[in-house]
Amino acid sequence: MTKNTFDLERQLLSDYDSKLTVEGVSGERLAYRLGVLSKIGLTEDNGSRRPGFSKEERDAKNWIIKWMEEAGMQVREDGAGNIIGRLDGKHPDKPVIMSGSHVDTVPNGGHFDGTIGVLSALEVAQSWKETGYAPEKPLEIVAFTDEEGSRFNGGLTGSEAMMGDTDIKAMQAKEDFDGRSFEEVIKDVGLSVEGFKSAERPHSDIESYVEVHIEQGKRLEKEQLPCGIVTGIAGPYWLRLTFKGQAGHAGNTPMTDRQDALVAAGHFIHYISHLPQKINDSAVATVGNIEVKPNGTNVIPGEVIVYVDIRDIFENTRQQLIDAIIQTAEDISESWAITLTCETVHNVPPVPIKKDLQDKLKTAMQEKGIRPFYLPSGAGHDAMIVGQHVPSAMIFVRSKNGISHNPAEWSDLNDCVQAVHILKDYIESCQSL
Amino acid sequence: MTKNTFDLERQLLSDYDSKLTVEGVSGERLAYRLGVLSKIGLTEDNGSRRPGFSKEERDAKNWIIKWMEEAGMQVREDGAGNIIGRLDGKHPDKPVIMSGSHVDTVPNGGHFDGTIGVLSALEVAQSWKETGYAPEKPLEIVAFTDEEGSRFNGGLTGSEAMMGDTDIKAMQAKEDFDGRSFEEVIKDVGLSVEGFKSAERPHSDIESYVEVHIEQGKRLEKEQLPCGIVTGIAGPYWLRLTFKGQAGHAGNTPMTDRQDALVAAGHFIHYISHLPQKINDSAVATVGNIEVKPNGTNVIPGEVIVYVDIRDIFENTRQQLIDAIIQTAEDISESWAITLTCETVHNVPPVPIKKDLQDKLKTAMQEKGIRPFYLPSGAGHDAMIVGQHVPSAMIFVRSKNGISHNPAEWSDLNDCVQAVHILKDYIESCQSL
Repeated sequence: MTKNTFDLERQLLSDYDSKLTVEGVSGERLAYRLGVLSKIGLTEDNGSRRPGFSKEERDAKNWIIKWMEEAGMQVREDGAGNIIGRLDGKHPDKPVIMSGSHVDTVPNGGHFDGTIGVLSALEVAQSWKETGYAPEKPLEIVAFTDEEGSRFNGGLTGSEAMMGDTDIKAMQAKEDFDGRSFEEVIKDVGLSVEGFKSAERPHSDIESYVEVHIEQGKRLEKEQLPCGIVTGIAGPYWLRLTFKGQAGHAGNTPMTDRQDALVAAGHFIHYISHLPQKINDSAVATVGNIEVKPNGTNVIPGEVIVYVDIRDIFENTRQQLIDAIIQTAEDISESWAITLTCETVHNVPPVPIKKDLQDKLKTAMQEKGIRPFYLPSGAGHDAMIVGQHVPSAMIFVRSKNGISHNPAEWSDLNDCVQAVHILKDYIESCQSL
Repeated sequence: MTKNTFDLERQLLSDYDSKLTVEGVSGERLAYRLGVLSKIGLTEDNGSRRPGFSKEERDAKNWIIKWMEEAGMQVREDGAGNIIGRLDGKHPDKPVIMSGSHVDTVPNGGHFDGTIGVLSALEVAQSWKETGYAPEKPLEIVAFTDEEGSRFNGGLTGSEAMMGDTDIKAMQAKEDFDGRSFEEVIKDVGLSVEGFKSAERPHSDIESYVEVHIEQGKRLEKEQLPCGIVTGIAGPYWLRLTFKGQAGHAGNTPMTDRQDALVAAGHFIHYISHLPQKINDSAVATVGNIEVKPNGTNVIPGEVIVYVDIRDIFENTRQQLIDAIIQTAEDISESWAITLTCETVHNVPPVPIKKDLQDKLKTAMQEKGIRPFYLPSGAGHDAMIVGQHVPSAMIFVRSKNGISHNPAEWSDLNDCVQAVHILKDYIESCQSL
């Protein structure tokens, strides 16, 4: 397929079962809107490029504003650029039920990550308008700014700002991929540091948050299910381990007289790949990044830095895994006469999802004839940030081949629309006062 | 010590035993000459920076020319910039005994690597002049061009040119650290591609070659010996192994559903560190260079490239080790469902040193009361190139802490001068017609 013939809407509709267009929810409208957004930042590979704080993210937000207004919502933008559409409901003083996601994408990413969460919530609001449903509590739909963080090598920027979690000094110290400062970049899209600070809102304003997102894994595909109930969001914990040995000439140093930092690191990387399974099914540990010094073919590595990404949805099992990994690094370093340094460079606590929210989703699924299936989220989402402070739930939509952050990212429209129906029923089940 | 007070000559002489200044050999002169060369390209760390084809290498060569002339030699420069000093001896038509090394250094290297080989040979010629010794056969001393290869990521350039081993087309395709072509760079120091080709000389012109070099290892230090007899030069064999797995999200991919190329590579690196000892004492294998794709902390590595440097002084044991390493890579890749690609990117045959040359060195050592100690050379030297075609011997000088290619590189003057005496006696023992 060449760029000229790319038509996401047509592709989505080609095998759509229009019987799913009921109760005010429209698969056709969802396909149209996904199609509109797909053209903003379309790449040569038919992927999406809408970095945070770009003109493309802004254009996508403008469409969201338009559709919020179509759904009869009052729209405002907070100081972090988060777009918030609101329906007051019968009791506008009550804390809000909030739902949403983001519209920025990674460079050459897909057309479902983020967008499906915002558009699903919009379908709920639009369906209410069309069916005349009047909610008891206020509903707010949010398109959070810069979830992916591809510009400043960070992410979750908008949701952190709303929750008051932004380290503004750290943000100001960052430079984007063009070497431009945070302040300079956000000015381009009409934002300011002062505005960012003002985005924080009392957590008590929000009763709960719910986010529809693509799974980005293969579990639902294996189970042949359109969507599933997320049990928890596995907060990432990053360890930076430095193995210090002794550099030396690869030819002149006998094997018995070496302190090869890469041999120790290799031993470690291999060994820890067996640890998570022993602790918990949903636990994972990955060494994705390694730096070898001096990295010359004929020089014994004197120093190796590895980053270990450790995740689980429960704090206690994640801590067990962290402890076991550090212990392994210490034992292996000792056995190779290597000096080890260990630092924590990133730590987002896991967000277990409350049982009562999971049960509401289970009921919604059972009523729609979908077998309730429970799965963890290994990736971070805006719900991970909001969930630190406010009860949060997530619905995952099946991903084709588990592929994400890639133009080949795909979710069938039938699956997406079924997730919308679950979201709608879930939010309606939250209306009792 | 600061740059201003750096005085290599003074440091060398501080614990010199002047009883070693006998038979026309002068430790004081050797210290002076090492001191002169140390000032050319002196770095802020009191190291040496004289890249091949630089003004600094040229300046060092000019001093060598001056000292060759002082020793009564006829001096010429070949088309590769190799400086050759010649004493005709009583039978100028006989093949020459050749000795030398190089005067270029790695960036921020030491003051002994290479220089000690050229200056030791010069001491022999100078001692003959002072004592009136007349050799039977011609003696040629060579300062080879660009042994270290830091400019074009190669090395052994001058000795390869003299031996006719230069791949001139490959050289012409290279760019130096400033992005300049080989032809451009060598023009700066008065050389040309045509001249390079003309540097080749018949191997039958040379009876044998001998090179004094610092050990760059700790074996002599452990044995408390000033110098030793090299048994062979372990030619490097470089394998480039590509482990191809499947990239994926570090959070969303269960441990049981991964093809992590770095886990396989880590397993391999650790495993092969135990193989050389099983095959031969002098065998070594090193992974010094690794490239991980995409090398993101939260991405499972999809591809890992490792370079394995494999060496031994015997062809058969080296081949056994290569075979065992490839087999290991294949077995491990299979067990992790990884696709393996294996290429040979560099292959210099080992140079075993002939027993009769080792025996001559042994006799010289015994006569000077130095216990003959045999050790392999794991590093390549000009003798490795010359030795492919002409019988070659090497004498190693003790290195302090085994450190080399570093400003801390050090050899005691007493050790250096004892090596000069061994070299002198050895060359004199080669004079029988």
